[in-house]
Amino acid sequence: MSSSHFADRLNQKIKQTKSPLVVGLDPRFDQLPATLKVSVSSIETTQEDRARITAEFCKGVIDVVGPLVPAVKPQAAFFEQLGPLGMLALAEVVDYAHAAGLIVIMDAKRGDIGSTAAAYADAFLGRKPASVWGCDSLTINPYLGDDSLTPFTKIATERGAGLFVLVKTSNPGSKTFQEQKVDGQPLYAMVADHVQTLAAADLGQSGYGSVGAVIGATHPQQLTELRSLMPNTLFLVPGLGAQGGTAADVAGAFDENGLGAVINSSRAIIFAYERDQFAGAGSWQAAIEQATIETNRQIAENTSAGNL
Amino acid sequence: MSSSHFADRLNQKIKQTKSPLVVGLDPRFDQLPATLKVSVSSIETTQEDRARITAEFCKGVIDVVGPLVPAVKPQAAFFEQLGPLGMLALAEVVDYAHAAGLIVIMDAKRGDIGSTAAAYADAFLGRKPASVWGCDSLTINPYLGDDSLTPFTKIATERGAGLFVLVKTSNPGSKTFQEQKVDGQPLYAMVADHVQTLAAADLGQSGYGSVGAVIGATHPQQLTELRSLMPNTLFLVPGLGAQGGTAADVAGAFDENGLGAVINSSRAIIFAYERDQFAGAGSWQAAIEQATIETNRQIAENTSAGNL
Repeated sequence: MSSSHFADRLNQKIKQTKSPLVVGLDPRFDQLPATLKVSVSSIETTQEDRARITAEFCKGVIDVVGPLVPAVKPQAAFFEQLGPLGMLALAEVVDYAHAAGLIVIMDAKRGDIGSTAAAYADAFLGRKPASVWGCDSLTINPYLGDDSLTPFTKIATERGAGLFVLVKTSNPGSKTFQEQKVDGQPLYAMVADHVQTLAAADLGQSGYGSVGAVIGATHPQQLTELRSLMPNTLFLVPGLGAQGGTAADVAGAFDENGLGAVINSSRAIIFAYERDQFAGAGSWQAAIEQATIETNRQIAENTSAGNL
Repeated sequence: MSSSHFADRLNQKIKQTKSPLVVGLDPRFDQLPATLKVSVSSIETTQEDRARITAEFCKGVIDVVGPLVPAVKPQAAFFEQLGPLGMLALAEVVDYAHAAGLIVIMDAKRGDIGSTAAAYADAFLGRKPASVWGCDSLTINPYLGDDSLTPFTKIATERGAGLFVLVKTSNPGSKTFQEQKVDGQPLYAMVADHVQTLAAADLGQSGYGSVGAVIGATHPQQLTELRSLMPNTLFLVPGLGAQGGTAADVAGAFDENGLGAVINSSRAIIFAYERDQFAGAGSWQAAIEQATIETNRQIAENTSAGNL
């Protein structure tokens, strides 16, 4: 059943929405709309309040972006920051996103060895009841080496789920270790080569594998180079918007059909109501909707995703 | 107040218990004692059952090892595998360990950038109410680079908490990337150098910093080399027992006073009731107690920790 392969499901959803945009759910509590906090004391906000308002905000974002994009990417850190109640909120948000027809990429950057890696994979990969968190895909960290990735790829393949391995991240400090030269090549190129091998080992009908790569929008030239070196690897490209990447910067991430990449924007969309450009939208949700439509337009105009 | 520095608190506890042993709480559900599962249907175990039994098991381990070791290391993956209820169980276990006087090293291997890294740091570092999880220390992954470590070190220093950065892990696959040569040196040595600099920037009275390093027991020679290159860095050494490392293998991790390292053992202790050697102990808790005492003895006989 081809539709059970993660890359095929993601590509289908990209074609359906004519958008490769992933909306990052990074619900920094201090930035959430004041209208969601009116019932809460400004002196002392309880953990219950924070978790409830965080879930309410994310669900409000999903209501707006659901018809416009293929996927959302919850950032686990902002839910863990709220403790066990935050993790309950995260589970609620994942379910809500699925009900809206969205693919969920959990951004948790997990990584460990042996049966511990298998426990993370079992926790996150595959919709319920395959896993308790029910995610379509998970970001993972390669530092622990090839045998730390195997439990993730095995379970992803079994469950029709996907992975995005950190290759070249969007932060300035990504040069510290990722750009160190190994046999004349940067370390990230070696990781990229390993990821492409993993991707090619579990291909969907679309020609892309279940194992993808995270490559920052802040490195346009590297995106182009890696696209040709990793023909079967889906790219998850963070860094658009608040981190400085533009739609033109991510053009190299796509294949000629406008597939092969999803572009993540978090703050520039979910906190659009703080931006002058969308101040007149009338509500925080309307601002988010306008920012999503505008980002879709910019990507379509500047990349092959315009051909979708 | 010197007692608020993580390294000083850990060293004080090591001296008090005359043990550098950390008991890893890796509660793989299938391996938990049958006596804890008698009330549960073998056909269908609910998430509530699994979370409750997991917490009960970990608390039973803590009851036994509390007087014998300085710290426990919960493995976040096995709690996340049980979903939001598992995370509630994790919070309960952390509180229970603190009530038993133990230091808690959260093994979550988190890593991210900017405000996301700060959210993880805020979530885990420092006892309640400084953080919602209330941990003394957290393991983190360096792949994202220097600016990804800064939010963790900043918050750790502010809260008297500790960090252990992955340098050289205990798995065979650690060679895939960690041993790649950069300017003639393995990558892990470059990471080690960076971690030593961070450690030296926030020293306690004991001469050790709040930033430590994870270095596997399966690499005895590397432990010795790195000990001399990282004089201010606490080592967290996994891999003793089930992964093949022996007490003699970890001797190089310690300074001449028996300080500078904590040695983790997980499966060989918490599942001691499955081992022939401790089969006659009479109960799963007695088996764990005997295995802890035996491991303490082996470390004392084979390393400078015998001088504690």
